[in-house]
Amino acid sequence: MKVVVVVGGVGGARFLLGVKAALGLPPVGEGESPHQVTAIVNTGDDVWMHGLRVCPDLDTCMYTLGGGIDPDRGWGHAGETWTVKAELQAYGAEPTWFSLGDKDIATHLVRTRMLRAGYPLSAVTEALCDRWRPGARLLPMADDRVETHVVVDDPDVPGQRKALHFQEWWVRYRASLRAHSIVPVGAEEATPAPGVLEAIAEADAVLFAPSNPVVSVGTVLSVPGVREALRKTEAGIVGVSPIIGGRPLRGMADACLTAIGVDTSAEAVGRLYGSRHTSEEGLLDGWLVHEGESVDVPGVAVRAVPLLMSGVDATVKMALAALDLSGVDVD
Amino acid sequence: MKVVVVVGGVGGARFLLGVKAALGLPPVGEGESPHQVTAIVNTGDDVWMHGLRVCPDLDTCMYTLGGGIDPDRGWGHAGETWTVKAELQAYGAEPTWFSLGDKDIATHLVRTRMLRAGYPLSAVTEALCDRWRPGARLLPMADDRVETHVVVDDPDVPGQRKALHFQEWWVRYRASLRAHSIVPVGAEEATPAPGVLEAIAEADAVLFAPSNPVVSVGTVLSVPGVREALRKTEAGIVGVSPIIGGRPLRGMADACLTAIGVDTSAEAVGRLYGSRHTSEEGLLDGWLVHEGESVDVPGVAVRAVPLLMSGVDATVKMALAALDLSGVDVD
Repeated sequence: MKVVVVVGGVGGARFLLGVKAALGLPPVGEGESPHQVTAIVNTGDDVWMHGLRVCPDLDTCMYTLGGGIDPDRGWGHAGETWTVKAELQAYGAEPTWFSLGDKDIATHLVRTRMLRAGYPLSAVTEALCDRWRPGARLLPMADDRVETHVVVDDPDVPGQRKALHFQEWWVRYRASLRAHSIVPVGAEEATPAPGVLEAIAEADAVLFAPSNPVVSVGTVLSVPGVREALRKTEAGIVGVSPIIGGRPLRGMADACLTAIGVDTSAEAVGRLYGSRHTSEEGLLDGWLVHEGESVDVPGVAVRAVPLLMSGVDATVKMALAALDLSGVDVD
Repeated sequence: MKVVVVVGGVGGARFLLGVKAALGLPPVGEGESPHQVTAIVNTGDDVWMHGLRVCPDLDTCMYTLGGGIDPDRGWGHAGETWTVKAELQAYGAEPTWFSLGDKDIATHLVRTRMLRAGYPLSAVTEALCDRWRPGARLLPMADDRVETHVVVDDPDVPGQRKALHFQEWWVRYRASLRAHSIVPVGAEEATPAPGVLEAIAEADAVLFAPSNPVVSVGTVLSVPGVREALRKTEAGIVGVSPIIGGRPLRGMADACLTAIGVDTSAEAVGRLYGSRHTSEEGLLDGWLVHEGESVDVPGVAVRAVPLLMSGVDATVKMALAALDLSGVDVD
């Protein structure tokens, strides 16, 4: 069975652990299984930092599935050290609001060198995964540079607006500056990375991880061709709500949803993705919401199950419910 | 008084400590003094490593004079850590024979980013020194890329020769492959960095540190215009022998001297630099050799004093002897 999962960072990576385990694969690392998991990963958060190309979501997925993640933070390396960061600060090198760990920097050095040598991001990711062996195929949504920018009131110039890179808004300002709009810059000219459209076409099931519906899943969907491929695939498409009880499971998805005029509710996000059957742009066959929530998304089969990813066991149950709702039989 | 010192890495940096102290400056860091030290630093050892521009001699001088050097190794940072290196090895990233410390990497990140933004190496060096405050002006010999290459018998293909970057020959092979020739690639098209020719013209004394006469001082001299400026300056020029008792003080200068057909002796190196007065290419007014050695360099005033840089005090005495021999009065 071939399962495609559209993911962002921490939440997406943790969901992938459950999907792998649901298919009989070890959650971390490689293993024998007739089943195959392909993650289509948001790259709109990618950013140049101190001359290094940083791909937070790809790396979070890679480290999580490869067994290198810091389990408490959910991002970055276990046992990370921060020597380079302290030295960069001693130089007064800007920006100081983004933390690069020493181990992480090695990843970015390898990536940056390969990118500068002309390799596309998809090939670089494959090379990095040669080491990490995530046991799932990690595809960047696109090899082209797509960067999510957020239009805010300029904190320094009253009455003026400015566009920030998503990372600056998210990490530096903790999404505290009200977002007027969120734009995946470059998406219009981007094309899906090699394998993305094929994976969707050949999938038996497509899942949207409980990642940020605007700046993670939404950014993947902004790449021309992805939405069309999803609408055409014979696979069932099931989304997992990142909103539980009107609040994001983690992160600050509410600030993103507000920016695009969508309520922070499982129902509103389900309707944002929409139905493949009753709308012209919609994508979902099924929508998984948290137990006890009563949600109506026209044209979409809604099911309520526990959605707290409190551990791999709980996440496996979520993944199994999502796969079941998509119409495949895992057993 | 303005003193110019032509230097390489470890030996040159330690000699600079003595020159500073001889002029009433603190050996490490900045201080009040009417005197000024300018180092013209070899950049022929510079190399791209893992996508970072590494300038070993500039950094060794900067860290040594700025108080950051590892005093035992003589290069790299005190309290250095090696997390990034271990991770790069886990990726199988080549080359593995060159060690980049974590603290050091921050320097290279700042440098590489500035170079890629279009700043010349001299401006980058000045910016890095804003932090380190070496108390001496550190000028790269040139902003252009000049790289010392060494022609050796190919260790993999019998009967064939190949050119290695100096660092590969020096660090990877420990100069064990016989060098047929040593070439500062790019030197012919290089121009001295801003300030180099002016410093030589305005100097009251010019000293050649006891650095490698072939790949450190020799490489600086290979930049068109430097030799001419030295021959024209009114300052006295005194070299300090890096060869004591027929052996290099440190490093493997003998392998370099052999490659260019020069004996490993204080006399032969003195003659290699030559006399400003009795030869058309020569540069020296004075030549400082180790106590007890009897050396004859035609047209050059030779003086014998202790040349072991066993500490700053000993080095100050060397520097004072060199300055005295150059004709300036330090007191």
